[in-house]
Amino acid sequence: MSLSNRQIKLINSLHSKKGRKENLLFLVEGEKCIEELLKSNWAYEILVLNENLRSSFENLSNVFFLSEDQIKKYSALQSNSFGFAVVHINENPESNLHLKGINIYLDGIRDPGNLGTIVRICDWYGINTIYVSEDTTDFYNPKTIISTMGSFTRVNVISTALHTIIENNPEIQVLGTFLEGESIYQIKFPQDMLIVLGNESNGIRQETENLIRQKITIPRIGGAESLNVGISTAIVIDNIIRGKS
Amino acid sequence: MSLSNRQIKLINSLHSKKGRKENLLFLVEGEKCIEELLKSNWAYEILVLNENLRSSFENLSNVFFLSEDQIKKYSALQSNSFGFAVVHINENPESNLHLKGINIYLDGIRDPGNLGTIVRICDWYGINTIYVSEDTTDFYNPKTIISTMGSFTRVNVISTALHTIIENNPEIQVLGTFLEGESIYQIKFPQDMLIVLGNESNGIRQETENLIRQKITIPRIGGAESLNVGISTAIVIDNIIRGKS
Repeated sequence: MSLSNRQIKLINSLHSKKGRKENLLFLVEGEKCIEELLKSNWAYEILVLNENLRSSFENLSNVFFLSEDQIKKYSALQSNSFGFAVVHINENPESNLHLKGINIYLDGIRDPGNLGTIVRICDWYGINTIYVSEDTTDFYNPKTIISTMGSFTRVNVISTALHTIIENNPEIQVLGTFLEGESIYQIKFPQDMLIVLGNESNGIRQETENLIRQKITIPRIGGAESLNVGISTAIVIDNIIRGKS
Repeated sequence: MSLSNRQIKLINSLHSKKGRKENLLFLVEGEKCIEELLKSNWAYEILVLNENLRSSFENLSNVFFLSEDQIKKYSALQSNSFGFAVVHINENPESNLHLKGINIYLDGIRDPGNLGTIVRICDWYGINTIYVSEDTTDFYNPKTIISTMGSFTRVNVISTALHTIIENNPEIQVLGTFLEGESIYQIKFPQDMLIVLGNESNGIRQETENLIRQKITIPRIGGAESLNVGISTAIVIDNIIRGKS
């Protein structure tokens, strides 16, 4: 069974944000992400796999087996020779109106790989929801999804303005990471908090900074000017968790 | 002044490891890395910049100004429109025979971006030397260098077998990161140590594992199967530094 022209057109449209939004579908690419997809509750529309995987997957529904060349042709990611799935976007991700524990807010992250890595880190530490500014890179970008290494199935990413979260949670302690602030080694973190991390080049924008109650920093010893935003996210979360353990 | 054919041939040869090894030169690309290069003691052979930067840099020696199209044509990295430098490889990086403090050993890291990020992390925490297995990705790959965000000027990367380091440092405590091991939140780290981190897909290989005295792990709470090796490196170093502070 081969893909119809309509299906091929649909798959190609999902390489762009516009196409994903119109169709409410996205692409899950590569072995690790497909493996995690099949273990999860996420529903796929169709699954397209390398023909050399036929014997392991032929019992699945809506599965197509194509040559490696065809997989590469239809994939959004060059290096993908395993296959991809067309998956329904979760239109109403679970969002707690009242934030508890550790919550992350990303202010204008541009790089899909960074967003995917942060989703994976949050999944590792048991944080199930990430809030992002409306101009943060698209969670459903195939590059973001593959960087999550499957964690997209367990972490909700909710696009919303920071002031909306604060209006719903007037008591929430809002902390932000800056190059200068209180050392994360010294601070006593509150029980419930929202940690804000900024854009790769410019950090947290002024408008966002105005909503932050406490500036925190990762103490620097050497010469590097900054840390990658994924690295910073991991270190801050680890310090909070370690403090509680 | 335009580049000679000989210079263009040389620049192209530096896109490959073979060419870098033969010429003992490498490429430093992009704004941040060139800025750090010029502040450092590293010597460049030639500097090639976008012609719109002429007024800021025309006093430098051996500098060529080319159109953006030409910069992109000769660069190893697609996104580079700023410029690049041809720089001498440090043939004899400072290597302490006797390891003190925190030392990092990378066992077969494959991704240049991961190696560059680890160099940047070590620089942040004041660690000036990283040891890598001989099959680790090339430090002088343009993708590695740009990922260091300039930290390549302050961190030595030394390619050597783990057993050679141990022969020179029979007393050194060798720890390795595994999915199962003693929690980094509980362990009392020694004063002088070598921390081993493994390959992105396969972790630490058996041969290396045999030389490790203590297995350590980052406690996991949620569902992700693993963390990226750059993230793991940062969290382990941060836990050691935090414990000392």
